[in-house]
Amino acid sequence: MTATATLDTLETPCLLLDETRMTRNIERLNALMAGHGVQLRPHLKTPKSIEVARRVMSRPQGPAAVSTLQEAEQFADAGVTDLLYAVGIAPAKLERVLALRQRGVDLTVVVDSIDAARAVAARAKVAGEGIPALIEIDCDGHRAGVQPGNHEHLLAIAHVLNDAGCLRGVMTHAGESYGCRSLEAIADMAEQERAAAVGCADAIRQAGLPCPVVSVGSTPTAHFARHLDGVTEVRAGVYVFFDLVMAGLGVCAVDDIAATVLTTVIGHQPDKGWILVDAGWMAMSRDRGTAKQPVDQLYGLVCDAQGKPYPDLLLAETNQEQGIIKLRAGSNASLPDLPIGAKLRIVPNHACATCAQHDAYEVVRGNDPGVVAHWERFRGW
Amino acid sequence: MTATATLDTLETPCLLLDETRMTRNIERLNALMAGHGVQLRPHLKTPKSIEVARRVMSRPQGPAAVSTLQEAEQFADAGVTDLLYAVGIAPAKLERVLALRQRGVDLTVVVDSIDAARAVAARAKVAGEGIPALIEIDCDGHRAGVQPGNHEHLLAIAHVLNDAGCLRGVMTHAGESYGCRSLEAIADMAEQERAAAVGCADAIRQAGLPCPVVSVGSTPTAHFARHLDGVTEVRAGVYVFFDLVMAGLGVCAVDDIAATVLTTVIGHQPDKGWILVDAGWMAMSRDRGTAKQPVDQLYGLVCDAQGKPYPDLLLAETNQEQGIIKLRAGSNASLPDLPIGAKLRIVPNHACATCAQHDAYEVVRGNDPGVVAHWERFRGW
Repeated sequence: MTATATLDTLETPCLLLDETRMTRNIERLNALMAGHGVQLRPHLKTPKSIEVARRVMSRPQGPAAVSTLQEAEQFADAGVTDLLYAVGIAPAKLERVLALRQRGVDLTVVVDSIDAARAVAARAKVAGEGIPALIEIDCDGHRAGVQPGNHEHLLAIAHVLNDAGCLRGVMTHAGESYGCRSLEAIADMAEQERAAAVGCADAIRQAGLPCPVVSVGSTPTAHFARHLDGVTEVRAGVYVFFDLVMAGLGVCAVDDIAATVLTTVIGHQPDKGWILVDAGWMAMSRDRGTAKQPVDQLYGLVCDAQGKPYPDLLLAETNQEQGIIKLRAGSNASLPDLPIGAKLRIVPNHACATCAQHDAYEVVRGNDPGVVAHWERFRGW
Repeated sequence: MTATATLDTLETPCLLLDETRMTRNIERLNALMAGHGVQLRPHLKTPKSIEVARRVMSRPQGPAAVSTLQEAEQFADAGVTDLLYAVGIAPAKLERVLALRQRGVDLTVVVDSIDAARAVAARAKVAGEGIPALIEIDCDGHRAGVQPGNHEHLLAIAHVLNDAGCLRGVMTHAGESYGCRSLEAIADMAEQERAAAVGCADAIRQAGLPCPVVSVGSTPTAHFARHLDGVTEVRAGVYVFFDLVMAGLGVCAVDDIAATVLTTVIGHQPDKGWILVDAGWMAMSRDRGTAKQPVDQLYGLVCDAQGKPYPDLLLAETNQEQGIIKLRAGSNASLPDLPIGAKLRIVPNHACATCAQHDAYEVVRGNDPGVVAHWERFRGW
């Protein structure tokens, strides 16, 4: 990428980010959160980029959430000081947590068991300072967390943390919202998520312990919650770019999806109705999130170089560095005539997974063929 | 990783490479190729590492195959001078191909159409030197390539290349061998692959054109070909590490798989029989290659820290940075008692995809807990 790069001069495959769409997505959720009067804590595991983070956070210092300590360290280097490491803490990782805290980063960790709480409390006592922790609540049976009705377990963890000055609150994530079949079901799931977190916070407070933070969120529930009474912050990540899974849920339109993969036609198998491109699973990831949805988009929707979808044209199969484009099964559309060398954009199933295959965003704005910026991503643990 | 790193001190998740197993895998295929009297051209898209390349190639200069020009450039920087870029060439990539050739790298490209052949020939004429090209043959309907019975098309491409001093031979890849259900079927597929390539080479020679290179290969067919008469070189990549897909095919044993992911237990959901670990799809990839096999291994087989598999224990589900371990459905085995902080190894479905999620190999030898080396990987295009 140089200052004069355009869609024509970019090497393919590469990751395109439409800043116009991204800005629209950011503004939409900001407006919703302002309406609820609740703070947004954007999850930076999707962008993994300082430049995107600065546009998605309310202030340069945060708040934000991360999924790895590598993200926490990178964002701390860029001046972010209010971070939640939103994955259950492994005791061996507490050294890196403390190192960040000693640099002035208010990094919070997550626990969902007595054993993990004891590890945090013990390390905090040795360090002579609290390590703030949220207790994860399992609002939907999706993953980790204390069962919301098991107050005995919840309070046992809360006491261990509080005795070491580490209790900051509760958090939950309605991952099952990705499986909802209507916006009404998403709104119901948002209420289930909210009620689980607020109910556990109330139980902690009734036991005489502090619970200043009540953190909830997923991209679907953040957008369709009816109300967020009792919630202090909402986390969401993929909304900054959106993707075909979110479009399939009805959370966004295909036209809102900001991150796509630019690819080049490298061949044809005319007898089979195939167009071959240089975007395989290395460029797209193996994520097939829409496979479980009513409309399966295979490895992605095929658009022209300006981002306009072709009717029923899908990236149907992927090898490591080759993809096979076909019409959707049963389609009456016709295969476009795309010569070798033609460029296309592929809209991915899952933005987090596809972006993770790339080291940078080539930033464009709507239909303009110019590349306005090159934003680096980071990765690793 | 420091000089004194051990499995206990590594940050997780990370990629482990058992050099003892890798060496055994390399020696096995070298012996088979020596028996056939055919040159091996290892495909370096799997390791993407100079150190692994030096161990898998017959000489420091190659030959070897790559799947991206980024790989070609990295290996050229390390002194590899005999390279095949084994993906159909996009015309815009010929500048980088020529730049490598002008550095003294004998880089060969692949075409399967008149249009691509014309682009190569035209660029070669401008450059005043041939750009050697192989014509891809579609031996099994899997991907790209000229139909092996369509000699008219084959010879038209061959003439375009030959007129510009670019015709070097033919190549094919039996990607369908991954779907075979027996070693006999793999041997049959190897013969189909061999016969398609040799038949096309004969047709080119009968037309009075040169065809010095007849290149075939996939890891399954390379290991079970009955003979390779007329073949000049065999390509294979994933055999250097193997994986669960190859074990499911019977090409290797689970005990041969050299690349695994080291992970840490971060939680439990005892009511559900779940163990949570810090290896999600970011560490494993979303590859589910065994889903199409008779035994589906979900996201991978779970082993203890020394690499011994637990009976029927699988990485069943993955979020971005969390994995859920469960017993295989219907198993009579019992869930091991693994405390928070315990380390495990996960054997992946597909080595190429899982390794691509990591920036380095932590090299171990068999059951020894010491980490003997840290080998960097590269990525991108």
